[in-house]
Amino acid sequence: MSNPSGLELEKQPPSPAPAADVEGGPTAGPGAGSSGFGVSSVLRRWRREDLMRKGSAVLRALGLVFSMLSFIIMASNNHGDWRQFGKYEEYRYLLAIAILSTLYTGGQCYRQFHQTYTGKDLLPLKTAALIDFVGDQIIAYLLLSSASSAIPLTNRMREGADNIFTDSSAAAISMSLLAFLVLACSSVIAGYKLSTQSYL
Amino acid sequence: MSNPSGLELEKQPPSPAPAADVEGGPTAGPGAGSSGFGVSSVLRRWRREDLMRKGSAVLRALGLVFSMLSFIIMASNNHGDWRQFGKYEEYRYLLAIAILSTLYTGGQCYRQFHQTYTGKDLLPLKTAALIDFVGDQIIAYLLLSSASSAIPLTNRMREGADNIFTDSSAAAISMSLLAFLVLACSSVIAGYKLSTQSYL
Repeated sequence: MSNPSGLELEKQPPSPAPAADVEGGPTAGPGAGSSGFGVSSVLRRWRREDLMRKGSAVLRALGLVFSMLSFIIMASNNHGDWRQFGKYEEYRYLLAIAILSTLYTGGQCYRQFHQTYTGKDLLPLKTAALIDFVGDQIIAYLLLSSASSAIPLTNRMREGADNIFTDSSAAAISMSLLAFLVLACSSVIAGYKLSTQSYL
Repeated sequence: MSNPSGLELEKQPPSPAPAADVEGGPTAGPGAGSSGFGVSSVLRRWRREDLMRKGSAVLRALGLVFSMLSFIIMASNNHGDWRQFGKYEEYRYLLAIAILSTLYTGGQCYRQFHQTYTGKDLLPLKTAALIDFVGDQIIAYLLLSSASSAIPLTNRMREGADNIFTDSSAAAISMSLLAFLVLACSSVIAGYKLSTQSYL
Protein backbone atom coordinates (compact mmCIF):
# COMPACT_ATOMS: atom_id res chain seq x y z
CA MET A 1 0.00 0.00 0.00
CA SER A 2 1.59 3.26 -1.09
CA ASN A 3 -0.72 5.58 0.83
CA PRO A 4 -0.17 5.41 4.62
CA SER A 5 -3.67 6.69 5.41
CA GLY A 6 -5.43 4.05 3.31
CA LEU A 7 -7.29 2.55 6.26
CA GLU A 8 -8.56 5.93 7.38
CA LEU A 9 -9.91 6.60 3.91
CA GLU A 10 -11.87 3.40 3.90
CA LYS A 11 -13.85 4.36 6.99
CA GLN A 12 -14.86 7.91 6.13
CA PRO A 13 -13.83 9.55 2.87
CA PRO A 14 -13.21 13.21 3.71
CA SER A 15 -13.08 14.49 0.12
CA PRO A 16 -14.27 13.16 -3.25
CA ALA A 17 -10.85 12.48 -4.81
CA PRO A 18 -9.58 9.83 -2.31
CA ALA A 19 -13.04 8.26 -2.27
CA ALA A 20 -12.75 7.68 -6.00
CA ASP A 21 -9.37 6.06 -5.39
CA VAL A 22 -10.72 3.67 -2.79
CA GLU A 23 -13.64 2.54 -4.91
CA GLY A 24 -11.52 2.82 -8.05
CA GLY A 25 -11.75 0.13 -10.71
CA PRO A 26 -9.17 -0.66 -13.40
CA THR A 27 -9.92 2.72 -15.04
CA ALA A 28 -8.08 4.61 -12.27
CA GLY A 29 -4.82 5.88 -13.75
CA PRO A 30 -1.34 4.71 -12.61
CA GLY A 31 -0.46 8.10 -11.08
CA ALA A 32 -3.46 8.11 -8.80
CA GLY A 33 -1.62 7.60 -5.47
CA SER A 34 -3.54 4.92 -3.55
CA SER A 35 -5.02 3.33 -6.68
CA GLY A 36 -2.99 0.12 -6.15
CA PHE A 37 -5.12 -0.61 -3.10
CA GLY A 38 -8.37 -0.11 -5.00
CA VAL A 39 -7.35 -2.27 -7.97
CA SER A 40 -6.14 -5.15 -5.85
CA SER A 41 -9.28 -5.02 -3.70
CA VAL A 42 -11.49 -5.11 -6.78
CA LEU A 43 -9.44 -7.95 -8.27
CA ARG A 44 -9.72 -9.87 -5.02
CA ARG A 45 -13.47 -9.36 -5.00
CA TRP A 46 -13.74 -10.49 -8.64
CA ARG A 47 -11.77 -13.62 -7.88
CA ARG A 48 -13.93 -14.37 -4.85
CA GLU A 49 -17.11 -13.77 -6.81
CA ASP A 50 -15.91 -16.01 -9.62
CA LEU A 51 -15.14 -18.77 -7.12
CA MET A 52 -18.56 -18.35 -5.53
CA ARG A 53 -20.32 -18.45 -8.89
CA LYS A 54 -18.53 -21.65 -9.88
CA GLY A 55 -19.07 -23.11 -6.40
CA SER A 56 -22.80 -22.51 -6.41
CA ALA A 57 -23.12 -23.87 -9.97
CA VAL A 58 -21.34 -27.09 -8.95
CA LEU A 59 -23.39 -27.38 -5.75
CA ARG A 60 -26.67 -26.96 -7.62
CA ALA A 61 -25.64 -29.51 -10.26
CA LEU A 62 -24.85 -31.96 -7.43
CA GLY A 63 -28.20 -31.12 -5.85
CA LEU A 64 -29.91 -31.93 -9.16
CA VAL A 65 -28.12 -35.30 -9.37
CA PHE A 66 -28.91 -36.27 -5.77
CA SER A 67 -32.55 -35.21 -5.80
CA MET A 68 -33.14 -36.88 -9.18
CA LEU A 69 -31.62 -40.09 -7.82
CA SER A 70 -33.84 -39.87 -4.75
CA PHE A 71 -36.88 -39.27 -6.96
CA ILE A 72 -36.10 -42.17 -9.33
CA ILE A 73 -35.24 -44.65 -6.57
CA MET A 74 -38.37 -43.85 -4.58
CA ALA A 75 -40.68 -43.72 -7.62
CA SER A 76 -39.53 -47.18 -8.76
CA ASN A 77 -39.93 -48.61 -5.26
CA ASN A 78 -42.94 -50.82 -6.03
CA HIS A 79 -42.61 -54.50 -5.23
CA GLY A 80 -46.21 -55.54 -4.67
CA ASP A 81 -48.26 -56.22 -1.54
CA TRP A 82 -47.24 -53.98 1.40
CA ARG A 83 -43.93 -53.15 -0.30
CA GLN A 84 -45.18 -50.11 -2.24
CA PHE A 85 -44.09 -46.61 -1.40
CA GLY A 86 -47.62 -45.28 -2.09
CA LYS A 87 -48.97 -46.99 1.02
CA TYR A 88 -46.88 -44.82 3.39
CA GLU A 89 -47.39 -41.10 3.71
CA GLU A 90 -43.73 -40.54 4.68
CA TYR A 91 -42.52 -42.03 1.40
CA ARG A 92 -45.10 -40.10 -0.61
CA TYR A 93 -43.85 -36.93 1.10
CA LEU A 94 -40.23 -37.83 0.34
CA LEU A 95 -41.12 -38.44 -3.32
CA ALA A 96 -43.03 -35.16 -3.60
CA ILE A 97 -40.15 -33.16 -2.14
CA ALA A 98 -37.61 -34.99 -4.30
CA ILE A 99 -39.63 -34.03 -7.40
CA LEU A 100 -39.88 -30.43 -6.22
CA SER A 101 -36.15 -30.30 -5.54
CA THR A 102 -35.38 -31.84 -8.95
CA LEU A 103 -37.50 -29.19 -10.67
CA TYR A 104 -35.94 -26.35 -8.67
CA THR A 105 -32.31 -27.41 -9.09
CA GLY A 106 -32.99 -28.24 -12.76
CA GLY A 107 -34.33 -24.74 -13.30
CA GLN A 108 -31.31 -23.24 -11.54
CA CYS A 109 -28.90 -25.30 -13.67
CA TYR A 110 -30.74 -24.24 -16.84
CA ARG A 111 -30.43 -20.60 -15.74
CA GLN A 112 -26.73 -21.13 -15.10
CA PHE A 113 -26.14 -22.64 -18.56
CA HIS A 114 -28.17 -19.87 -20.18
CA GLN A 115 -26.04 -17.29 -18.36
CA THR A 116 -22.78 -19.01 -19.33
CA TYR A 117 -23.61 -19.20 -23.03
CA THR A 118 -25.55 -16.00 -23.65
CA GLY A 119 -23.77 -13.94 -21.01
CA LYS A 120 -26.93 -12.54 -19.41
CA ASP A 121 -29.17 -13.71 -16.61
CA LEU A 122 -32.81 -14.65 -17.12
CA LEU A 123 -33.77 -12.59 -14.04
CA PRO A 124 -32.83 -9.10 -12.85
CA LEU A 125 -29.89 -9.06 -10.41
CA LYS A 126 -31.76 -8.21 -7.20
CA THR A 127 -34.61 -10.66 -7.80
CA ALA A 128 -32.14 -13.38 -8.78
CA ALA A 129 -30.18 -13.08 -5.52
CA LEU A 130 -33.37 -13.15 -3.45
CA ILE A 131 -34.84 -16.12 -5.34
CA ASP A 132 -31.53 -18.00 -5.07
CA PHE A 133 -31.34 -17.56 -1.31
CA VAL A 134 -35.00 -18.15 -0.44
CA GLY A 135 -35.30 -21.06 -2.87
CA ASP A 136 -32.15 -22.85 -1.70
CA GLN A 137 -33.07 -22.38 1.94
CA ILE A 138 -36.66 -23.56 1.60
CA ILE A 139 -35.77 -26.58 -0.55
CA ALA A 140 -33.04 -27.50 1.96
CA TYR A 141 -35.55 -27.33 4.83
CA LEU A 142 -38.09 -29.41 2.89
CA LEU A 143 -35.51 -32.07 1.97
CA LEU A 144 -34.37 -32.37 5.58
CA SER A 145 -37.94 -32.54 6.82
CA SER A 146 -38.94 -35.28 4.35
CA ALA A 147 -35.83 -37.35 5.03
CA SER A 148 -36.29 -37.01 8.81
CA SER A 149 -39.90 -38.12 8.62
CA ALA A 150 -39.05 -41.18 6.52
CA ILE A 151 -36.13 -42.40 8.65
CA PRO A 152 -38.07 -43.75 11.71
CA LEU A 153 -40.52 -45.68 9.50
CA THR A 154 -37.68 -47.31 7.58
CA ASN A 155 -35.85 -48.10 10.81
CA ARG A 156 -38.91 -49.81 12.24
CA MET A 157 -39.51 -51.81 9.04
CA ARG A 158 -35.92 -52.97 8.96
CA GLU A 159 -36.23 -54.39 12.45
CA GLY A 160 -38.82 -56.81 11.08
CA ALA A 161 -37.69 -57.46 7.51
CA ASP A 162 -34.68 -56.38 5.49
CA ASN A 163 -35.54 -56.62 1.81
CA ILE A 164 -35.27 -54.70 -1.47
CA PHE A 165 -38.10 -52.36 -0.45
CA THR A 166 -36.47 -51.16 2.77
CA ASP A 167 -33.06 -50.96 1.05
CA SER A 168 -34.44 -48.80 -1.74
CA SER A 169 -36.17 -46.57 0.80
CA ALA A 170 -32.92 -46.17 2.73
CA ALA A 171 -31.10 -45.31 -0.52
CA ALA A 172 -33.70 -42.68 -1.43
CA ILE A 173 -33.47 -41.18 2.05
CA SER A 174 -29.67 -40.99 1.83
CA MET A 175 -29.89 -39.23 -1.53
CA SER A 176 -32.36 -36.72 -0.09
CA LEU A 177 -30.00 -36.08 2.82
CA LEU A 178 -27.06 -35.54 0.45
CA ALA A 179 -29.19 -33.15 -1.61
CA PHE A 180 -30.04 -31.34 1.61
CA LEU A 181 -26.36 -30.96 2.56
CA VAL A 182 -25.47 -29.62 -0.87
CA LEU A 183 -28.37 -27.15 -0.94
CA ALA A 184 -27.62 -26.01 2.62
CA CYS A 185 -24.09 -25.06 1.50
CA SER A 186 -25.49 -23.41 -1.61
CA SER A 187 -27.90 -21.36 0.51
CA VAL A 188 -25.00 -20.06 2.60
CA ILE A 189 -23.29 -18.81 -0.58
CA ALA A 190 -26.58 -17.35 -1.84
CA GLY A 191 -27.10 -15.60 1.51
CA TYR A 192 -23.63 -14.09 1.30
CA LYS A 193 -24.35 -12.84 -2.23
CA LEU A 194 -27.68 -11.38 -1.16
CA SER A 195 -26.14 -9.60 1.84
CA THR A 196 -23.25 -8.04 -0.05
CA GLN A 197 -24.86 -7.13 -3.36
CA SER A 198 -26.09 -3.71 -2.16
CA TYR A 199 -22.45 -2.69 -1.64
CA LEU A 200 -21.47 -3.44 -5.24
CA MET B 1 -38.11 17.36 -5.10
CA SER B 2 -36.87 20.83 -5.94
CA ASN B 3 -34.02 19.64 -8.13
CA PRO B 4 -35.33 18.64 -11.57
CA SER B 5 -32.43 16.22 -12.20
CA GLY B 6 -32.87 14.46 -8.83
CA LEU B 7 -33.32 11.02 -10.37
CA GLU B 8 -30.13 11.34 -12.35
CA LEU B 9 -28.22 12.43 -9.27
CA GLU B 10 -29.44 9.45 -7.30
CA LYS B 11 -27.90 7.06 -9.79
CA GLN B 12 -24.54 8.76 -10.23
CA PRO B 13 -23.67 11.82 -8.12
CA PRO B 14 -21.40 13.98 -10.30
CA SER B 15 -20.25 16.31 -7.50
CA PRO B 16 -20.23 16.14 -3.70
CA ALA B 17 -22.83 18.85 -2.94
CA PRO B 18 -25.86 17.29 -4.74
CA ALA B 19 -24.89 13.90 -3.33
CA ALA B 20 -25.21 15.36 0.17
CA ASP B 21 -28.67 16.62 -0.79
CA VAL B 22 -29.87 13.25 -1.94
CA GLU B 23 -28.41 11.14 0.84
CA GLY B 24 -28.31 13.94 3.46
CA GLY B 25 -29.12 13.01 7.09
CA PRO B 26 -30.27 15.39 9.83
CA THR B 27 -26.75 16.18 11.04
CA ALA B 28 -25.38 17.20 7.64
CA GLY B 29 -24.66 20.92 7.96
CA PRO B 30 -25.14 23.32 5.04
CA GLY B 31 -21.40 23.86 4.59
CA ALA B 32 -20.38 20.25 5.21
CA GLY B 33 -19.41 19.44 1.63
CA SER B 34 -19.01 15.69 1.09
CA SER B 35 -18.63 14.80 4.78
CA GLY B 36 -22.46 14.81 5.09
CA PHE B 37 -22.52 11.77 2.83
CA GLY B 38 -20.23 9.78 5.13
CA VAL B 39 -22.00 10.79 8.34
CA SER B 40 -25.53 10.03 7.11
CA SER B 41 -24.45 6.70 5.68
CA VAL B 42 -22.82 5.78 8.99
CA LEU B 43 -25.93 6.90 10.89
CA ARG B 44 -28.17 4.82 8.62
CA ARG B 45 -25.95 1.80 9.16
CA TRP B 46 -26.03 2.32 12.94
CA ARG B 47 -29.82 2.51 12.91
CA ARG B 48 -30.05 -0.67 10.83
CA GLU B 49 -27.59 -2.48 13.07
CA ASP B 50 -29.46 -1.41 16.18
CA LEU B 51 -32.70 -2.74 14.70
CA MET B 52 -31.01 -6.01 13.80
CA ARG B 53 -29.51 -6.38 17.27
CA LYS B 54 -32.89 -5.84 18.92
CA GLY B 55 -34.57 -8.12 16.39
CA SER B 56 -32.21 -10.99 16.97
CA ALA B 57 -32.42 -10.56 20.77
CA VAL B 58 -36.23 -10.77 20.60
CA LEU B 59 -36.12 -13.76 18.24
CA ARG B 60 -33.72 -15.65 20.49
CA ALA B 61 -35.81 -14.91 23.58
CA LEU B 62 -38.84 -16.28 21.73
CA GLY B 63 -36.78 -19.30 20.70
CA LEU B 64 -35.91 -19.88 24.35
CA VAL B 65 -39.56 -19.71 25.38
CA PHE B 66 -40.73 -22.08 22.63
CA SER B 67 -38.01 -24.65 23.05
CA MET B 68 -38.37 -24.63 26.83
CA LEU B 69 -42.12 -25.19 26.45
CA SER B 70 -41.45 -28.05 24.04
CA PHE B 71 -38.95 -29.54 26.48
CA ILE B 72 -41.27 -29.26 29.51
CA ILE B 73 -44.34 -30.56 27.71
CA MET B 74 -42.50 -33.56 26.28
CA ALA B 75 -40.58 -34.34 29.48
CA SER B 76 -43.81 -34.43 31.51
CA ASN B 77 -45.53 -36.61 28.93
CA ASN B 78 -45.67 -39.76 31.07
CA HIS B 79 -49.08 -41.32 31.63
CA GLY B 80 -48.23 -44.96 32.27
CA ASP B 81 -48.43 -48.07 30.09
CA TRP B 82 -47.72 -47.34 26.40
CA ARG B 83 -48.33 -43.65 26.96
CA GLN B 84 -44.75 -42.72 27.87
CA PHE B 85 -42.55 -40.64 25.61
CA GLY B 86 -39.50 -42.78 26.50
CA LYS B 87 -40.89 -45.74 24.57
CA TYR B 88 -40.65 -43.96 21.19
CA GLU B 89 -37.36 -42.93 19.67
CA GLU B 90 -38.96 -39.99 17.82
CA TYR B 91 -40.13 -38.44 21.08
CA ARG B 92 -36.78 -39.04 22.75
CA TYR B 93 -35.13 -37.30 19.78
CA LEU B 94 -37.56 -34.39 20.04
CA LEU B 95 -36.85 -34.05 23.77
CA ALA B 96 -33.08 -34.16 23.26
CA ILE B 97 -33.18 -31.47 20.59
CA ALA B 98 -35.55 -29.34 22.69
CA ILE B 99 -33.06 -29.50 25.59
CA LEU B 100 -30.18 -28.63 23.27
CA SER B 101 -32.11 -25.71 21.81
CA THR B 102 -33.07 -24.49 25.30
CA LEU B 103 -29.42 -24.53 26.37
CA TYR B 104 -28.26 -22.76 23.19
CA THR B 105 -30.91 -20.02 23.20
CA GLY B 106 -30.48 -19.63 26.97
CA GLY B 107 -26.77 -19.08 26.48
CA GLN B 108 -27.42 -16.58 23.72
CA CYS B 109 -29.91 -14.66 25.87
CA TYR B 110 -27.44 -14.61 28.76
CA ARG B 111 -24.76 -13.25 26.40
CA GLN B 112 -27.22 -10.60 25.22
CA PHE B 113 -28.05 -9.49 28.78
CA HIS B 114 -24.37 -9.46 29.69
CA GLN B 115 -23.68 -7.27 26.65
CA THR B 116 -26.55 -4.90 27.46
CA TYR B 117 -25.51 -4.35 31.08
CA THR B 118 -21.71 -4.41 30.91
CA GLY B 119 -21.45 -3.03 27.38
CA LYS B 120 -19.03 -5.65 26.08
CA ASP B 121 -19.46 -9.00 24.42
CA LEU B 122 -18.30 -12.27 25.98
CA LEU B 123 -16.74 -13.32 22.68
CA PRO B 124 -14.55 -11.50 20.13
CA LEU B 125 -16.54 -9.92 17.27
CA LYS B 126 -15.55 -12.29 14.46
CA THR B 127 -16.04 -15.46 16.51
CA ALA B 128 -19.35 -14.17 17.83
CA ALA B 129 -20.77 -13.59 14.35
CA LEU B 130 -19.65 -17.02 13.17
CA ILE B 131 -21.00 -18.80 16.25
CA ASP B 132 -24.30 -16.92 15.98
CA PHE B 133 -24.83 -17.92 12.38
CA VAL B 134 -23.64 -21.54 12.58
CA GLY B 135 -25.41 -22.12 15.90
CA ASP B 136 -28.75 -20.67 14.80
CA GLN B 137 -28.66 -22.53 11.52
CA ILE B 138 -27.76 -25.91 13.01
CA ILE B 139 -30.27 -25.66 15.86
CA ALA B 140 -32.95 -24.66 13.33
CA TYR B 141 -32.14 -27.72 11.20
CA LEU B 142 -32.17 -30.01 14.25
CA LEU B 143 -35.51 -28.64 15.48
CA LEU B 144 -37.10 -29.10 12.06
CA SER B 145 -35.69 -32.60 11.78
CA SER B 146 -36.95 -33.69 15.20
CA ALA B 147 -40.41 -32.21 14.67
CA SER B 148 -40.67 -33.82 11.22
CA SER B 149 -39.72 -37.21 12.56
CA ALA B 150 -42.27 -37.04 15.39
CA ILE B 151 -45.22 -35.87 13.25
CA PRO B 152 -46.01 -39.16 11.40
CA LEU B 153 -45.90 -41.21 14.61
CA THR B 154 -48.31 -38.84 16.35
CA ASN B 155 -50.60 -38.80 13.30
CA ARG B 156 -50.77 -42.57 13.28
CA MET B 157 -51.45 -42.76 17.03
CA ARG B 158 -54.23 -40.22 16.75
CA GLU B 159 -55.99 -42.37 14.16
CA GLY B 160 -56.41 -45.01 16.86
CA ALA B 161 -56.77 -43.03 20.07
CA ASP B 162 -56.96 -39.33 20.86
CA ASN B 163 -55.94 -38.85 24.47
CA ILE B 164 -53.79 -36.65 26.69
CA PHE B 165 -50.61 -38.40 25.53
CA THR B 166 -51.11 -37.67 21.83
CA ASP B 167 -52.33 -34.14 22.60
CA SER B 168 -49.23 -33.38 24.66
CA SER B 169 -47.02 -34.80 21.91
CA ALA B 170 -48.75 -32.62 19.33
CA ALA B 171 -48.27 -29.58 21.57
CA ALA B 172 -44.56 -30.32 22.02
CA ILE B 173 -44.17 -30.76 18.24
CA SER B 174 -45.90 -27.43 17.59
CA MET B 175 -43.61 -25.68 20.06
CA SER B 176 -40.56 -27.20 18.37
CA LEU B 177 -41.84 -26.01 14.99
CA LEU B 178 -42.39 -22.49 16.33
CA ALA B 179 -38.87 -22.51 17.79
CA PHE B 180 -37.61 -23.63 14.37
CA LEU B 181 -39.37 -20.74 12.60
CA VAL B 182 -37.97 -18.22 15.06
CA LEU B 183 -34.41 -19.57 14.83
CA ALA B 184 -34.60 -19.75 11.04
CA CYS B 185 -35.38 -16.02 10.97
CA SER B 186 -32.61 -15.37 13.49
CA SER B 187 -30.13 -17.29 11.36
CA VAL B 188 -30.96 -15.09 8.36
CA ILE B 189 -30.10 -11.99 10.44
CA ALA B 190 -26.94 -13.68 11.76
CA GLY B 191 -25.93 -14.59 8.20
CA TYR B 192 -26.37 -11.00 7.11
CA LYS B 193 -24.22 -9.80 10.02
CA LEU B 194 -21.54 -12.37 9.23
CA SER B 195 -21.46 -11.42 5.54
CA THR B 196 -21.23 -7.68 6.07
CA GLN B 197 -18.93 -7.45 9.10
CA SER B 198 -15.72 -7.56 7.04
CA TYR B 199 -16.72 -4.27 5.40
CA LEU B 200 -17.02 -2.39 8.72
